[in-house]
Amino acid sequence: MNNIRMNKILVEMKVRKLPQLLVSDPATIYYLTGVSVDPGERLLTLVLKENGEHVAVINRLFPIAEKDLGMPIVSVDDTDEGFGMLNLINQLDVNQKIAVDKSWAAHFLLDLMKRVDKPVDNFDLSSNITDDIRSVKSVEEIKLMKDVSKDNDEAVNRLQALIPQKLTELEMTKKLAAIYHDLGNSGFSFDPIVAYGANGADPHHMNDDSIVKAGDSIILDIGGIKNGYCSDMTRTFFYQEVSDKSRDVYETVLEANLRAIAKVKPGVKFSEIDAAARDYITEKGYGEYFTHRTGHFIGIECHEAGDVSAANHTEVKPGMIFSIEPGIYLPGEVGVRIEDLVVATETGCDVLNHYPKELTIIA
Amino acid sequence: MNNIRMNKILVEMKVRKLPQLLVSDPATIYYLTGVSVDPGERLLTLVLKENGEHVAVINRLFPIAEKDLGMPIVSVDDTDEGFGMLNLINQLDVNQKIAVDKSWAAHFLLDLMKRVDKPVDNFDLSSNITDDIRSVKSVEEIKLMKDVSKDNDEAVNRLQALIPQKLTELEMTKKLAAIYHDLGNSGFSFDPIVAYGANGADPHHMNDDSIVKAGDSIILDIGGIKNGYCSDMTRTFFYQEVSDKSRDVYETVLEANLRAIAKVKPGVKFSEIDAAARDYITEKGYGEYFTHRTGHFIGIECHEAGDVSAANHTEVKPGMIFSIEPGIYLPGEVGVRIEDLVVATETGCDVLNHYPKELTIIA
Repeated sequence: MNNIRMNKILVEMKVRKLPQLLVSDPATIYYLTGVSVDPGERLLTLVLKENGEHVAVINRLFPIAEKDLGMPIVSVDDTDEGFGMLNLINQLDVNQKIAVDKSWAAHFLLDLMKRVDKPVDNFDLSSNITDDIRSVKSVEEIKLMKDVSKDNDEAVNRLQALIPQKLTELEMTKKLAAIYHDLGNSGFSFDPIVAYGANGADPHHMNDDSIVKAGDSIILDIGGIKNGYCSDMTRTFFYQEVSDKSRDVYETVLEANLRAIAKVKPGVKFSEIDAAARDYITEKGYGEYFTHRTGHFIGIECHEAGDVSAANHTEVKPGMIFSIEPGIYLPGEVGVRIEDLVVATETGCDVLNHYPKELTIIA
Repeated sequence: MNNIRMNKILVEMKVRKLPQLLVSDPATIYYLTGVSVDPGERLLTLVLKENGEHVAVINRLFPIAEKDLGMPIVSVDDTDEGFGMLNLINQLDVNQKIAVDKSWAAHFLLDLMKRVDKPVDNFDLSSNITDDIRSVKSVEEIKLMKDVSKDNDEAVNRLQALIPQKLTELEMTKKLAAIYHDLGNSGFSFDPIVAYGANGADPHHMNDDSIVKAGDSIILDIGGIKNGYCSDMTRTFFYQEVSDKSRDVYETVLEANLRAIAKVKPGVKFSEIDAAARDYITEKGYGEYFTHRTGHFIGIECHEAGDVSAANHTEVKPGMIFSIEPGIYLPGEVGVRIEDLVVATETGCDVLNHYPKELTIIA
């Protein structure tokens, strides 16, 4: 168990008056204990208590040792009543507030609520605490994020070098898997996007058998995983030529990326960072074609709680790591997105990606 | 929209007195509409109403057409209050019971419950209805399951032919990806298991760089996806030689597999099928080494609701498809599992896998 992280949680439990937290999110369990397990549809939850007498309730299918987890384990079984829910409730003080993870399945939560028979206000989200703590990275985590992002710079460098071979989007994806393997990454942090021309104008395009043609934009939105932490970067290239319109789109996105990054420092609201990118794109006449938020938090998961959007009025704190990824998507024509990860410092931010961003035409 | 399936749901809504169902499970949405979309952490839910006036509430990031979905769409936005929860509540009659999907994230459910401010008993699970209906496959679905299972027979055949090359477990996994691709499958239905010797005694072993050695058992637990439906089969081979003990384990598992399959017919309880396999394994002295349920339901998802376990006292109905996969795992020694998919018929069952099950020693 990571005592520093656990102590931060205990402090927040007192501050927020939540005496017992159910933690079921595999990423948070990994963050707190170093134990990595995905229980699928089965029960696996830590019960964290204000007095430090934590306990884990775990389906016996998962061979986890108490010493690895740092707390006693109550084993449950597929054949137990409610698949182990009664054993879990035995570990709770049902007269106190019970907080559960944001991603816990509704069938667990409803079953718990009906069995303990308390009003809805007796329940809250444990992830409000754990996600806030996870959002501020330690020095060690920042180093891991820099390491995996350095690999990602190299991955995009090797992948763009293959563009003249005119591989399909899916073939490029396969090459990328080999590149990450070669760099010692354990896999993709998300399904990579390789999108040629108009395909890149659909932010949810699925890579297919398309082949690049002259004048196409080429979006490479890629990330790997190393030592449990995720990278994520987007670069957009052009093949053989670029139209004046595409060039204008590219320069607009690049300036929006730079303006948003320049805005990052402690105390600034995430909505202000979003506005720095969005207002510039709107000013240039492309506002309606920037169809998503400016960024998302990242770390153990590629998408962690927290985002850079008009709806997030919380403030930047040193150690937070998130993406800055404005884009412009002209349906049927061209898509451009430029994404970097940044870590907030005491005075501004460090950019974790160093691959060049100038408009590049690949011959 | 699939009217036959939707009508079954409307009938059950009346029977179970649930006038409004929120359906957010991507597999159920695909089952009902043919639209395939994974919304990640964003809001995407169908609101099915007893009177047939269904509506979908969908984050505008997902480009879904009303005509494809077969119902009007209310678009919500990352910047909407509660990420669209208010728009969703506007579509509900909060004085009636509200049923939600079993896998809906706790943060959506708690937010909904707190905003509508009704007792816990006002909420129920919509998946109790949709999962029951999905569990009984149509003639068309059975054909798709037979097709994808036939491919899986061929996949295991091609994969076992590679065993003499002494590839690592991970290298075998890569070969398998190419085999499914070649067979026209869109991918794995789950992370395949290739486990040599003692690795196979850990049912949650992660494939690694192990190489097979003489006397090892070789568990191949593999499945692909074709036309939206999943296959899943396990065969266990031996390399070069087999000890008397391993042979006894193998023959015990095979007999348990056959006894459980022979037990399947309408009206029999799933717990009785589980017992048919488990009692035989116990009788042979290996009971404590059969550490999981006998099987799971399968279809659009590799693990669907419903299982073959001591805890499931519901009865088999014609058209249900599930796995029969007893196993014996002697820690540090040997693991054997033999798995087939079966579809219940009016009088018994058809086995969907036809790859031989006799003990096979690969030279």
